[in-house]
Amino acid sequence: MHKFRVSTRRREELQDITSEVARVIGASGLKSGLCVVYCPHTTAALTVNEGADPDVAEDIISGLGHLVPSSLRFKHAEGNSDAHIKASLFGPSLTLIVEEGRPVLGTWQRIFFCEFDGPRERSVFVRTVAGGAGKE
Amino acid sequence: MHKFRVSTRRREELQDITSEVARVIGASGLKSGLCVVYCPHTTAALTVNEGADPDVAEDIISGLGHLVPSSLRFKHAEGNSDAHIKASLFGPSLTLIVEEGRPVLGTWQRIFFCEFDGPRERSVFVRTVAGGAGKE
Amino acid sequence: MHKFRVSTRRREELQDITSEVARVIGASGLKSGLCVVYCPHTTAALTVNEGADPDVAEDIISGLGHLVPSSLRFKHAEGNSDAHIKASLFGPSLTLIVEEGRPVLGTWQRIFFCEFDGPRERSVFVRTVAGGAGKE
Repeated sequence: MHKFRVSTRRREELQDITSEVARVIGASGLKSGLCVVYCPHTTAALTVNEGADPDVAEDIISGLGHLVPSSLRFKHAEGNSDAHIKASLFGPSLTLIVEEGRPVLGTWQRIFFCEFDGPRERSVFVRTVAGGAGKE
Repeated sequence: MHKFRVSTRRREELQDITSEVARVIGASGLKSGLCVVYCPHTTAALTVNEGADPDVAEDIISGLGHLVPSSLRFKHAEGNSDAHIKASLFGPSLTLIVEEGRPVLGTWQRIFFCEFDGPRERSVFVRTVAGGAGKE
Repeated sequence: MHKFRVSTRRREELQDITSEVARVIGASGLKSGLCVVYCPHTTAALTVNEGADPDVAEDIISGLGHLVPSSLRFKHAEGNSDAHIKASLFGPSLTLIVEEGRPVLGTWQRIFFCEFDGPRERSVFVRTVAGGAGKE
């Protein structure tokens, strides 16, 4: 398993980690298979979305804030239940296809670490698995 | 990696792609393992849900429209930020178990391509990986 | 493929299944690779979130109830469309990294079965795949 660190700078932030994930896959020597990117935190998550226009990441954060307002009455005493809910909505892991030693992404897609309760020092775990079975 | 095309006909639509995914797995020759279905678009996604009653797919679209109204004020100039948010909520990939050459699904489950900014010509990528380890 | 049962006791409930998943991985003999946990139901899902404070699970259920109110007008005659939408928001599968025969989780993370239309008898499927490629 590979690990890398992410330093977030705001309470909520989408940080582009595509190049870090691509570097891990390159270093693993895997040419064809899968790559699982995993977030070991309960107030952060991972997603894939548009990276060309940074307004999209801003809109995702503001849209999620509309969905899960921090003003909702929650029980959890730390006051960050909105971040826990957002983490489960986006999910802790991404499973990507690897071809020719690189993650397969669409033209506009980038991989993002989603901070919902920062700023913090965070970790990302990556596992590569060889694949492509039978007549693939 | 296998690819197939999906032609969507409305701005928002859940299209059942179960038979296409099953066909790809059958053609790969894989009997036991995993199948990753991947959506390379940033305003579309994949999900698994009930296929027997088409009202469920309609309710999912209308329920998501309640969650993420397109009337929210967004920055992204293309005016489709609601679609980007819905794409991240449902996610770009599905990881399915393969047994006896077929995807393992519950009685009522079907695999859906989720269009949030159509109609468009879309692509779906599929990777199969052999598996079942140790005493499996 | 391994299976285990989950008995839910309320309409909506997050039930900690971490020890069941760890037991399945242990029994498979897998030391290093991936584990896919799959929910074959259309009104239930899986997630990873904080398990130390049970208030977090309660807040996730109440927060989701705010997102997808059961009072929305839906077409599906069974009256459980809110549960179908929540199932797709959290998703039917989790892909976990396995190291030293155990699922890799963060300090506060636990694996939860998410019941949205119970109480019911439910099933969970698990597939393990050996991995760690190249220089891993």
